[in-house]
Amino acid sequence: MRFVVGVDIGGTNLVVGAMPIDGSREIGVHTLPTRAPLGADAVVQRICDMVETTIAAVLAEVGGTREQIAGVGVGCPGPLDRERGIVIVTPNLGWKDFPLRERISTQTGLPVSLDNDANCATLGEWWLGAAKGGRHVVGITLGTGIGGGLILDGRLFHGASDVAGEIGHTTIEANGRRCGCGNYGCLEAYASGPAIALRAREAVANGEPSRLHELCEGDLSRITAATVYKASAQGDAIADEVVKETARFLGIGVANILNVYNPDVVVLAGGVAQAGDSLFVPLRAEVRRRAFKPAVDACRIVPGSLDGSAGMVGAVAAFLQEHPVA
Amino acid sequence: MRFVVGVDIGGTNLVVGAMPIDGSREIGVHTLPTRAPLGADAVVQRICDMVETTIAAVLAEVGGTREQIAGVGVGCPGPLDRERGIVIVTPNLGWKDFPLRERISTQTGLPVSLDNDANCATLGEWWLGAAKGGRHVVGITLGTGIGGGLILDGRLFHGASDVAGEIGHTTIEANGRRCGCGNYGCLEAYASGPAIALRAREAVANGEPSRLHELCEGDLSRITAATVYKASAQGDAIADEVVKETARFLGIGVANILNVYNPDVVVLAGGVAQAGDSLFVPLRAEVRRRAFKPAVDACRIVPGSLDGSAGMVGAVAAFLQEHPVA
Repeated sequence: MRFVVGVDIGGTNLVVGAMPIDGSREIGVHTLPTRAPLGADAVVQRICDMVETTIAAVLAEVGGTREQIAGVGVGCPGPLDRERGIVIVTPNLGWKDFPLRERISTQTGLPVSLDNDANCATLGEWWLGAAKGGRHVVGITLGTGIGGGLILDGRLFHGASDVAGEIGHTTIEANGRRCGCGNYGCLEAYASGPAIALRAREAVANGEPSRLHELCEGDLSRITAATVYKASAQGDAIADEVVKETARFLGIGVANILNVYNPDVVVLAGGVAQAGDSLFVPLRAEVRRRAFKPAVDACRIVPGSLDGSAGMVGAVAAFLQEHPVA
Repeated sequence: MRFVVGVDIGGTNLVVGAMPIDGSREIGVHTLPTRAPLGADAVVQRICDMVETTIAAVLAEVGGTREQIAGVGVGCPGPLDRERGIVIVTPNLGWKDFPLRERISTQTGLPVSLDNDANCATLGEWWLGAAKGGRHVVGITLGTGIGGGLILDGRLFHGASDVAGEIGHTTIEANGRRCGCGNYGCLEAYASGPAIALRAREAVANGEPSRLHELCEGDLSRITAATVYKASAQGDAIADEVVKETARFLGIGVANILNVYNPDVVVLAGGVAQAGDSLFVPLRAEVRRRAFKPAVDACRIVPGSLDGSAGMVGAVAAFLQEHPVA
């Protein structure tokens, strides 16, 4: 049995680990902060070091030689040119037209695949997580931003120029809130982590009593999406309304997806997805109100089940879709 | 060379004709009103009569026997169950759980395929019209309603339950106008023919001078989308603003498609698409404002070129995708 190393490059953390090609287990998974102290090139060095550490862990466990390692799958944020293996731009990491695939491949001597991080998370949830068994799957990653991926007929769909899946940047309010992308009314401007926190700050700004004041110790700037879910779970009415509103916004985005792509699974991954029923029950209700019944009936809408490893697992799966390994 | 008969069942008209499997020409195309005087079953009779008339025209022209006819492709509105060949419901025609494919097949003795009318129009434009050469194509049909179809890697994409492509029923305003589907804020509620006419009536209701008053001879209820485009072409400022607004709404819907599906062609078919530059120039500008640059750069946004025959041509193509014919 051969192995593939998966690399998930997040804005905050790098997660690297290996899996046998049957996906039966994870070996040598470890996490380091993404930001290396010495700039953009140092991130590549850190990634390659982590790949080597993982390979050493695999070989220590199963024996054999480096031949056992089929390659490295990399998931990375930002617009990519997959064919050329180039990261077009990632503001967080300071890369621009950066030949990431070649850099890692040259340094490790292994074949490397490069794909979008949200695509990888979707593929991971489909391969081994909550979207298992789906044929047409839409993944939505909820975090600092809202990303997404499409699996159509069991394969990642990249579209004409590797943009496919940017669900966070679909308009749900024609003249709505300004989004970080420059557009107005994007789903991300309402339902990303920072957007949830912003709406909560607006909701308590008039001074009405709320658990949120206590949880942030009077400093509204410290409210995060996690604070909101916590206050809601503790029965706070204002936080609860913010969560319900979030569910309605996400429900609109998901309903739009159902009416156009008619998937059999929608999987929501990332921190926000852990909110559980308080989010998912009103979200599913909003989808039912807005989408066609045959589309609703055909689709399960579920939280991701792989937590922090979806991206790494999916990077392995993306490598295998590009480089079928015997 | 064998032939396929194409049937386009519209709310107003039935269009039936035949094509050789290479799509090189149309034979025996004719149109009749959809509504038969004697109820739902009579529509089926009329369709079968038209199929026979077309077959007779083919055989008169090319000689040979009925063996020349490979089958019949049917495009029909409303939610369908393609696998079972059933029309789930078409309010206009009074069909409910109606086994249309079997009815036509039994009566004609020919294999029959059944697909959604907007899917067929999209496929027609891809096969022989404005979307030719596209790999990932989105068709949007603009008329009394707004329909759509997706072509993925050169094949119609139907989704998990044949709903895929219902672009008209994606929300672009979370708390927007009521749509015929029961939802609020659908694209169709802003940019369908009747929605354009309604917005124009609202715009002139305060009595400001406009060519629209003259064109409808003072009876605002007679304003249609065509009236609006005509007044705009004649330089009427109010009508022009309604057209620009329509372009903005359609631009939002198209931008959402670009960011999620990243097609290489978007083709807008139907009467409204004939509005030309007055619609397409501001529409493309809105898409550029809202969608990611690599998605915009990869995609041409064009009016359909097959006019009234896209549905019939596409029904032939849909038959050929389901029943490859030597």
